[in-house]
Amino acid sequence: MKRKILVIYAHPEPTSLTCQLVHVTVQTLEKRGHTVIHSDLYGMRWKAVFDEYDFPSRIDKQRLSFIAESANAYSTGRQTADVAEEQAKLRSADAVILQFPLWWFGVPAILKGWIERVYAYGFGYGYRNEGNRYRYGEGALKGKRALVSVLVGGPEADYGSRGINGPIDQLLFPLTHGALFYSGLEVLPTHTVYGTARISSSEDVEAIKGDWRNRVLRLFEDVPIPFRQQNGGDYPDQHALGDHVAQGLSGLLAHVNEDTQV
Amino acid sequence: MKRKILVIYAHPEPTSLTCQLVHVTVQTLEKRGHTVIHSDLYGMRWKAVFDEYDFPSRIDKQRLSFIAESANAYSTGRQTADVAEEQAKLRSADAVILQFPLWWFGVPAILKGWIERVYAYGFGYGYRNEGNRYRYGEGALKGKRALVSVLVGGPEADYGSRGINGPIDQLLFPLTHGALFYSGLEVLPTHTVYGTARISSSEDVEAIKGDWRNRVLRLFEDVPIPFRQQNGGDYPDQHALGDHVAQGLSGLLAHVNEDTQV
Repeated sequence: MKRKILVIYAHPEPTSLTCQLVHVTVQTLEKRGHTVIHSDLYGMRWKAVFDEYDFPSRIDKQRLSFIAESANAYSTGRQTADVAEEQAKLRSADAVILQFPLWWFGVPAILKGWIERVYAYGFGYGYRNEGNRYRYGEGALKGKRALVSVLVGGPEADYGSRGINGPIDQLLFPLTHGALFYSGLEVLPTHTVYGTARISSSEDVEAIKGDWRNRVLRLFEDVPIPFRQQNGGDYPDQHALGDHVAQGLSGLLAHVNEDTQV
Repeated sequence: MKRKILVIYAHPEPTSLTCQLVHVTVQTLEKRGHTVIHSDLYGMRWKAVFDEYDFPSRIDKQRLSFIAESANAYSTGRQTADVAEEQAKLRSADAVILQFPLWWFGVPAILKGWIERVYAYGFGYGYRNEGNRYRYGEGALKGKRALVSVLVGGPEADYGSRGINGPIDQLLFPLTHGALFYSGLEVLPTHTVYGTARISSSEDVEAIKGDWRNRVLRLFEDVPIPFRQQNGGDYPDQHALGDHVAQGLSGLLAHVNEDTQV
């Protein structure tokens, strides 16, 4: 089955490991007959800052309310062209792959700004103009898959379960759970490459590419992270886990249903 | 004792609650005789994207390595003027206050880009040009305090220990631990205002301002979050918690020494 995949990536250096892995993504998918579309954030000179210029036709010219202006711009077709185009790409894609270096334990600012601007009210949140009614497993991007490929300069030991930086899955929870799953995407386990600041041999690079190629090949087969759906019964009041769910657990990991892990 | 405080904030609307709380910060501190300096990121039209333009004098004009170019630019005094100025502000300050709305469970892109660009190698990381030797409790900003003031649109229930979004302290761990404590700052407990999308009365706003004023007044008295120092004995190999530390714990919270909580 031929599909369309949107690759969103954030590194300005064409020879960087990030961009090398993007090439692997494209080659691997196109070889299988899939269609790849790109959001090369640095190459596009993506506007990272979410501000008044995102709303050329304001409903309130005096006071800027992001939520109100976003809802209006999205629903009336008055968004900026760059934002509308990214939303169209997302809608047309069967899967989204994000590739970026970990900077200060999160996504680069240019990618954070992509989320802030593209995730309009009515699209990335406030689906069907119903506030928080549909989120975490439901939303405009439901039925699509997401795969995060992150490159980490430091060693894996720093990101272990007791590593000094914290586990990568928890550091990236705001992205995987808070943005991707929030809008309905099925999020695959993050693919992390550690120690990129110390890679010395071309053999290492080839091994990294090979591992990533295998993940890309399983894009439509791998089992998503079993994040709990807001409206699947685990959050009776749509705010907090019910007493019967994840008993004794709290924090970020309580929102992953380990019982369904394969 | 008179001190200097740097207030860094990220909201473009002067009448926003964020900016109203910034005014409270300034008034409260100046009334006490302290000096306040500002980094109004939107007002400054801060360049959010970390890219090749941050390195006007490249050591390698062919291939952009952020770490190598950052180390060179910082150590040779060839950074861009805006970055050097922010570093000078940080150096001159006794405390830093960050004020921003929570966007997609993290700092706005413009603030993320401030961290990425201002935290040069040799300053924000790689202190004394020694890689990861000094971090988490040591570094260029040691001896200064940091206080985060975050404004959250959604209700507090969504951010409780079992709330659907995850606890705010864990969502902001990449900021408080991964950026602020990393560079040596003593980080105070985060001050969170919830439900800002639904504030209706001026009484509510006044109560919010009053709570914040009290936090600002205790800026130099409150007890910092007891994050574990890398070189304080809890990380024998500088990578992971020693077996004797935080037994049975893993994840982000293991890096907070609850035994020292007051």
